[in-house]
Amino acid sequence: MDVHPDKLDITITFAQSLDGKLAGPDGAQIALSCSESMQITHRLRSTNNAILVGANTAINDNPQLNTRLLPTEEQRNPQPVVLDTNLRLPPGCKLVQNFVAGKGLQPWLLTPGSDDLDWHHRRRVLENAGARIMIYNPNSTSHVDSIPSILSTLSFNGVSSLMVEGGPSVIQSFFTAHNKYGSIIDRIIITVAPMFVGEDGVGYNLPRSDGKPAFIHKDSFLAGKDAIMVLEPTSA
Amino acid sequence: MDVHPDKLDITITFAQSLDGKLAGPDGAQIALSCSESMQITHRLRSTNNAILVGANTAINDNPQLNTRLLPTEEQRNPQPVVLDTNLRLPPGCKLVQNFVAGKGLQPWLLTPGSDDLDWHHRRRVLENAGARIMIYNPNSTSHVDSIPSILSTLSFNGVSSLMVEGGPSVIQSFFTAHNKYGSIIDRIIITVAPMFVGEDGVGYNLPRSDGKPAFIHKDSFLAGKDAIMVLEPTSA
Repeated sequence: MDVHPDKLDITITFAQSLDGKLAGPDGAQIALSCSESMQITHRLRSTNNAILVGANTAINDNPQLNTRLLPTEEQRNPQPVVLDTNLRLPPGCKLVQNFVAGKGLQPWLLTPGSDDLDWHHRRRVLENAGARIMIYNPNSTSHVDSIPSILSTLSFNGVSSLMVEGGPSVIQSFFTAHNKYGSIIDRIIITVAPMFVGEDGVGYNLPRSDGKPAFIHKDSFLAGKDAIMVLEPTSA
Repeated sequence: MDVHPDKLDITITFAQSLDGKLAGPDGAQIALSCSESMQITHRLRSTNNAILVGANTAINDNPQLNTRLLPTEEQRNPQPVVLDTNLRLPPGCKLVQNFVAGKGLQPWLLTPGSDDLDWHHRRRVLENAGARIMIYNPNSTSHVDSIPSILSTLSFNGVSSLMVEGGPSVIQSFFTAHNKYGSIIDRIIITVAPMFVGEDGVGYNLPRSDGKPAFIHKDSFLAGKDAIMVLEPTSA
């Protein structure tokens, strides 16, 4: 890429249980957020250009990634982006259907591409259904090492602020990339739901950062029964 | 024991990071609570007869388990209780020294006893220093299966309300015992500190409870930058 894209403003946001789980066994979706914190999430969506989720979340949760919980005059839907290496997103998912029905922006599926014939078949099907396939330059087979390239691709396509909303493995990749490459995440906004998911749930682990905390507290507030906590990188 | 002790009122309370850690690597103490939530913990201590910690916490943290952060007229120190199977508590610890100096109640060390000569030597040293050694009837070598007997011993000795304050392995034992024996825990009060400890920290796991959550939300509030969340058993 021959341009040096401006730094994307990146917000990591997710809801978790007290025992630090973002999803149930095998990544099953769990209702964690209460209605008040859900509305705050939609407001946050409205202040970002784009919203990114992983393929597992897009498939399992079939999300709309819009701002429908806000009053009509405040709704401003962000660009939906799915990290979908193998183009597994079903063409009939809500993201595609909402776009076709004029109720949402065209979903972007980010992938490093493939030589596989079935992949190219799925590409055609998804493009015909309404999705846009965007190829990024993979630095390796891992999401972690491809994150800088993924962000460059988004920035090159006009995205200046990105909200990363899950699932657990995408969140984990961004945490690991931030620790490895630095200066990726601008803030983390966590909704803590007062419940336990249990040991079979899917959580996250933050890499150790040599004694110095990678993120420090910025704000805490309640939203219904949930607590919302905002952290920023130490160097910010 | 030939009496059927009344049910003890049991509050599990601990501070945790967002990533669900109660302590650092190898159980090292971490400053998690802010001053506002620490004061709430002291107020909670003042409303309980007794406060229980494990031997590791008593040794690593050298806690005072008193209510010193409250205004003088509101201070009411609970009975300090240490689960100390092998009587490892140092005789010079603050719990013993505070008692000798007239600044705290006599610490009780709960143990299933031992045939070991060194154990009996340590018992004499601790008793001479000022601690009271209390023998409970162990149902097995595990804390989990001995918890009903430990609670009976406390109840028989006049304790009617117990606050279990840590560390991670004692908390875990109570969670597991509650799942196994039922009706042990009356409430859980968790201070959530807006920080990450990282993957080397010591956390807890809640046993799965066949779909039905074992604890449900009762209250949420902020204390400084921390969130405090109260949960009660589903059957309460």
